[in-house]
Amino acid sequence: MGEFDLIARYFTRPARRAALGVGDDCALLTPAPGMQLAVSSDMLVEGRHFLADVPPRHLGHKALAVNLSDLAACGARPLAFTLALALPGVDEAWLQEFAAGLLQLADAHGCELIGGDTTQGPLNICITVFGEVPHGDALRRSGARAGDEVWVSGAPGQARLALGALRGEWALPDTVLATLRPRLEQPTPRVPLGLALRGIATSALDVSDGLLGDLAHILDASRVGAAVNADIATDLIAASAGGIGSGAVFDVESLPLGTAQRRHCALAGGDDYELVFTAPAARRAAVLDAGARSSTRVTRIGRIEARPGLHLTDAHMHPVAGTFASFNHFV
Amino acid sequence: MGEFDLIARYFTRPARRAALGVGDDCALLTPAPGMQLAVSSDMLVEGRHFLADVPPRHLGHKALAVNLSDLAACGARPLAFTLALALPGVDEAWLQEFAAGLLQLADAHGCELIGGDTTQGPLNICITVFGEVPHGDALRRSGARAGDEVWVSGAPGQARLALGALRGEWALPDTVLATLRPRLEQPTPRVPLGLALRGIATSALDVSDGLLGDLAHILDASRVGAAVNADIATDLIAASAGGIGSGAVFDVESLPLGTAQRRHCALAGGDDYELVFTAPAARRAAVLDAGARSSTRVTRIGRIEARPGLHLTDAHMHPVAGTFASFNHFV
Repeated sequence: MGEFDLIARYFTRPARRAALGVGDDCALLTPAPGMQLAVSSDMLVEGRHFLADVPPRHLGHKALAVNLSDLAACGARPLAFTLALALPGVDEAWLQEFAAGLLQLADAHGCELIGGDTTQGPLNICITVFGEVPHGDALRRSGARAGDEVWVSGAPGQARLALGALRGEWALPDTVLATLRPRLEQPTPRVPLGLALRGIATSALDVSDGLLGDLAHILDASRVGAAVNADIATDLIAASAGGIGSGAVFDVESLPLGTAQRRHCALAGGDDYELVFTAPAARRAAVLDAGARSSTRVTRIGRIEARPGLHLTDAHMHPVAGTFASFNHFV
Repeated sequence: MGEFDLIARYFTRPARRAALGVGDDCALLTPAPGMQLAVSSDMLVEGRHFLADVPPRHLGHKALAVNLSDLAACGARPLAFTLALALPGVDEAWLQEFAAGLLQLADAHGCELIGGDTTQGPLNICITVFGEVPHGDALRRSGARAGDEVWVSGAPGQARLALGALRGEWALPDTVLATLRPRLEQPTPRVPLGLALRGIATSALDVSDGLLGDLAHILDASRVGAAVNADIATDLIAASAGGIGSGAVFDVESLPLGTAQRRHCALAGGDDYELVFTAPAARRAAVLDAGARSSTRVTRIGRIEARPGLHLTDAHMHPVAGTFASFNHFV
């Protein structure tokens, strides 16, 4: 048995939901009757998806979180995942921490590690996650209709704010960075919100590349446009991501950042793994209730329009077109 | 849209079996009633799983073939797969060839690409494959019983023979290398044989690390031992891997290799992705029929025993224990 077989032992636990777990050629999954299986794969590479000095426990969390976030965006309930891992060498302390972060999040979502692969090579983490969703109930990108309202969960931009501080683009007070760093390194997949939005949201996706850029995927798939209130979205950057009605987590005016930088973080920053979604205006109360039931802040930031394109407004709904050159390629 | 989104276009085709294909947060799969979903993940890294100069078309084939081989070993019918791909840069000619090799094999097995991920990073290919198998019919590693016979498909050792020539460990005549190189670079997943062995084989796995080493996994999981006829297994190295009854593909006596080297290739060489499996002695005719129906050579190479360990014999069933020091760590 080679050392890379030994690595697998860090991740091997008795099979629960799967008929066969780690150790046979395949794992066997039996979706419940009437359920579709939702499947997503994400590959994480050092330098692109995480910094070299990220604590391995946080990396284990994030590697699974970004996959669970895809299930959340479909309204699917997590079932199981496979892990393929390339490592330059065997570092048992690193592995123990990585596995701890990974399996803690997996347990919190009842998501079972059912198989995978380990090999020697440049650090690479590839997870494929499986969830179940009642036949026909999955949230898709293509269902937004003119008149729907645009919503976002949590406090988009906080991960980008932390990343900028870690990269030296700007300084943040230590207490603020300590508050925001987990938003970058240990994002919370919005699984409960995704489940609560089944039958309410007309479209959804998770924000990995930036709020406006990802919203544009919904607009493309749904063949509609949108007006987004840039001021409301930007003000979320100091909000508590956890529950609606909770106050700001820091004083945004104390930051050494101008409005343009804060807007950039909120509108173009990725890595928060919040959900952006649409729902009919008549379902506004149902959306707020879904947020309350899932203890997740949800904020209405715009409206779907028949005219194509993504149009930004200020808090008074006046157009601010032309002032966001950096977002123009999304429009 | 970044260049790595563009890459995804090489792999995007209209969804067929999946309800949602490449492009939404998740793909949706609906297994047929009474079916279990078999899942396997393999990660391929340059230098460990393929040589740097392998033609990209062959690499595309192999990346999927090793995953389909896991389905074959479970007796599962291929349905779909996800592809996560890290590339150092965008080389369109490379991508076109890689995709061609990958999708040609996928089409041959009716296996649909339903999602995945592309990113910039050191070359890494991670495929997760899905198949279906009737509930309870999956071939496992743990079902071998004393008195069962041990079988192997095809011509194990040919991939290792080619690899040794490419590495300069030995020389092969050009015509022989040309015959054997596809066995290394474009292995044939034994999917039809795996399906034909449902209800006949008591255990199975695919040989990726070496015939004896992988057979040892069956012995461990089944808590049995085995006697393997090393001469019969070694003689397969010159056989046609395709169909039973077809002749040798080259004259083994013409090779500049001794018996010990040929044995090493056959018994410890991996990468052929043949199936090693067990079946009751009373089902011998059924096994041969399964081979005939799937046009795959199957050869009886030993017997499962109650006494633990893996014991080698010569063609006359005399023990040759102690003469294969290099295999001792499997015994």
